[in-house]
Order: sequence, then structure tokens, then C-alpha cells
Amino acid sequence: MSSPNIRIVLVNPLYGGNVGSVCRAMANTGLTELVLVAPAALDLAEARKMAVAAEAILEARREAATLAEAVADCGLVLGTTARAGLYRAHARSPREWAPGILAAAQSRKVALVFGRETWGLTNEEIALCTGLIQIPAAPEYPSLNLSHAVIICGYELLLAAGTYQPPAEKSPACDNRLRERMFAMWEEMLLAIGFMEPEKAQHMMLGVRRIFNRSPLTEDDVRILMGVARQTLWKARQDAAAPQSGNSLPDAAR
Amino acid sequence: MSSPNIRIVLVNPLYGGNVGSVCRAMANTGLTELVLVAPAALDLAEARKMAVAAEAILEARREAATLAEAVADCGLVLGTTARAGLYRAHARSPREWAPGILAAAQSRKVALVFGRETWGLTNEEIALCTGLIQIPAAPEYPSLNLSHAVIICGYELLLAAGTYQPPAEKSPACDNRLRERMFAMWEEMLLAIGFMEPEKAQHMMLGVRRIFNRSPLTEDDVRILMGVARQTLWKARQDAAAPQSGNSLPDAAR
Repeated sequence: MSSPNIRIVLVNPLYGGNVGSVCRAMANTGLTELVLVAPAALDLAEARKMAVAAEAILEARREAATLAEAVADCGLVLGTTARAGLYRAHARSPREWAPGILAAAQSRKVALVFGRETWGLTNEEIALCTGLIQIPAAPEYPSLNLSHAVIICGYELLLAAGTYQPPAEKSPACDNRLRERMFAMWEEMLLAIGFMEPEKAQHMMLGVRRIFNRSPLTEDDVRILMGVARQTLWKARQDAAAPQSGNSLPDAAR
Repeated sequence: MSSPNIRIVLVNPLYGGNVGSVCRAMANTGLTELVLVAPAALDLAEARKMAVAAEAILEARREAATLAEAVADCGLVLGTTARAGLYRAHARSPREWAPGILAAAQSRKVALVFGRETWGLTNEEIALCTGLIQIPAAPEYPSLNLSHAVIICGYELLLAAGTYQPPAEKSPACDNRLRERMFAMWEEMLLAIGFMEPEKAQHMMLGVRRIFNRSPLTEDDVRILMGVARQTLWKARQDAAAPQSGNSLPDAAR
């Protein structure tokens, strides 16, 4: 969770589906507190459908009559805007804001304020904000769907919080000793199957090395490659010992 | 635009609304090419509604019978996965992938592949990918809405491309000479209105300086503050010259 002190405020949301999508975006990024300012008559069935497993956030939402009421207890109030303009030119991106938001949320409530689907926040609402967020977007079409704006802000906060654990490979990166053992086995195998002549081996092995060195390999990767060489060598020797047999595959290779 | 060589591939999308939201997310982040693999019978009215101004991407979509067909001409094929697992543990985040995607897209097609809403990509589909993307998300609920996954990937590509121009303040940051002129005017004003006694002026001005130095100010900011001081001084002198007058505001302050 990025912080329990970060409140998502939607001003006059019109569509239940968007509010539900916002709930899911919040749950996906560790946010939990939702306040709606004077929402339209929302289609709550649609909201629940789009919230999917984030229905608890939808059910726990609060409503406020005005934006001033929704953010009255907040230290930092950040409005989102896609538009440029005289009093919007000091907006900063979510990535720039994220560390400051997390720092502020250590000691006080922070509100992230999102405008209505149709025309965003009014200048009067912008005036209530202590700062502005502009989400980077293509200049040809900078107006984001409400839940898209929320998930990008939540995503930047989640990353800035540093709590996200990326997937980790269980197998460590292989060291050079293991990699050289693997290349030695492949050289032996490629000679045994007649893929290359001994006098061309050094040249061909440079190509093989290039292929397997394009990316770092893990120990598990190298063990698979060594297993292929070992099994191929076993098969080649079986065939050499019994050249007439048509069915000499070891059990493991069947 | 991040690159014309980046293709968004949706495998078996079920809902027209999601496909439309994906189109909008693409337009918002400068992506244009959409391929649907064996889509369900989509509600196209709903798709158009959610695409809003990105209907051109929806209309230009292509369909493929299989994922293999959809990515046959692509050099880099990146599948998105929210799940962990033996053959998904080498997934990297969109932020890590972005520079490599843009570099690859200089010379060949790149596909970003998104699974079905219900259970993502199968292991067979993962096998067709040359790499995997995992979008950072809260561990309690890592499964993102389809269009949310697309916009985060597009957003990272847009930022990595470096083409996005953040809003820029037209007024430059003020220099110290201008700031000191402003503080001198404020000191004069605060003495003139009797806010502080001359012997406390140095002390009080430290508080005033602290307030206005909390953030960098632009020249426009300082000019507003100097205008306030100038006008207040004017008003204070008018009142001093004509202490009985109840209506001595200059025109500009009415």
C-alpha cells in the first residue's frame, strides 16, 4: 500500500462504470479511500461490475456536497488537469509529484482530485488545490479516461513507495565456470553429431557462444543446455555402438 | 507518438467497452496499431462510446485467427502477465522494458500482447512471446483491467521516447535581486500599515521571507507580490493624507 493517508476525490462523476473502474485501479495500486463530490445518479450495478474484486472500496466510499468539504482536512490537495492555461502551467507530472506526495502523507491527508468526465475541473476547483498534476499524454489527445488517470497516479505512487517487489528469478545468474563447462559440452556434442569438423570447431563455437551470450543466463538455463548436450552425446554413442538399431532412445528422451 | 512500429495485440477480448477503452488509452499515449486475436462478438456501440475521440484506431483494427498469426512479422513479442510462476519469473516491468522496446521498434515490428479479461495469457501463448512484461501492482490485487494495462505500457513508452513536452511556466524563475526588491517593498508596507513595530521588523521579516521562500517563485509571482505591496502603500498614504475619507481606494483596487 502506498499510504493510507492518500484520498482519491472524484468531482461530479457521471458514470457508475467509471467509478467502479477507479475502485479497481485504486485496489491495483494500493489506494483505499474514495470520496465522491456530488456524484450523478450512478449506475451502481455497472460500478460493481467494473470494480470486480475492489467492491470493498466502492462500498466504503464517502460523498461530499462540495470539493471544499471533501478536502477540508487535507494538507496537500492536488488537482489533475489535461488542459494548459495561465493558471495551469505550473502543473507537474505524477512522477515528479510522487515523492512529495508520499512525504506529505506521512503526517497529513493528501487529496488527489479528478474532475468530471466531460470537462475536468473548473478554475474555481483548481483554486482550491494547493498543486496541480498533469499526466503526460500525446498532445493530439491528452484527455484520459477517469480511471486511466487514477491508475497512472496510483502506479507512480506505488513505484515511488518502493514497496513493490518485482518478480525474481529463483535461479541465480550463472558464473563463467559453469558457462564454460556448458560450452565445452556443446563443443563435444556438436563434434559427436557431425555438425562441425574439428578444424572448424573453434570458428563455429564463436557463433554458438554469441547466441548464448546475447543475454545473461541463469544456472537453470545452463543446466537445461547442459542436459541437452549430455543427452545428445548419450544418444550419439548409443547409435555408434548399435548402428543398426532404430529404437535406441533412452527412456528419459522418449 | 512513441513509435509506429509498436502493435497492441489483444487476445480473445470479450467486451467492446474494454476494446474501446484500449483505443482511447492508445491514442492518449501515441500508439495507433491494434490487432484483435479471435475476439468475441464485441458490442461495437459500447466500444465506440469508450473510444471517444480514438474511434479511428477502433475502425482501423485488424483481426487475426491466432496469436501466432498476429505476431508472425514481429521481431520482439512481449506478453503481459500478472501471475507469477516458473516460466513467468523472468518478467520485467514496463519501465525496464521501455528503452529496449523503442530501440527494437527502430528496425522491426514490436508486439505488446495482452491476454483475455478472464485469465490472461495461456502458457502456450506465453511460449510465443520473446519476453514478458509484469506491471507493478499491489500484491493483494495484481490483476489490472485490460485498458489499464495498456495505458501503463503506453505511458512508459511515451515517457521513454522523450517526446512529451511537460507544461512550462512562461515566466522565468526570479533572481535574487528581484526577490530582495520585493522583500524591501513588503517591509515598507508592513511598517506603513502598522503590522509590525520598527524594532521588530527584522524578526518579522524572517517569517515573511520563510513563507515566500518555501518554493521557488517566478518573476510573475514576484510582480504580483510587489503589486500588492505597492497598492497597499498607496492606500495607506491616501488614508494618512485624508484620514476622514471613507472611499479612497484607487480605481485599480476596486
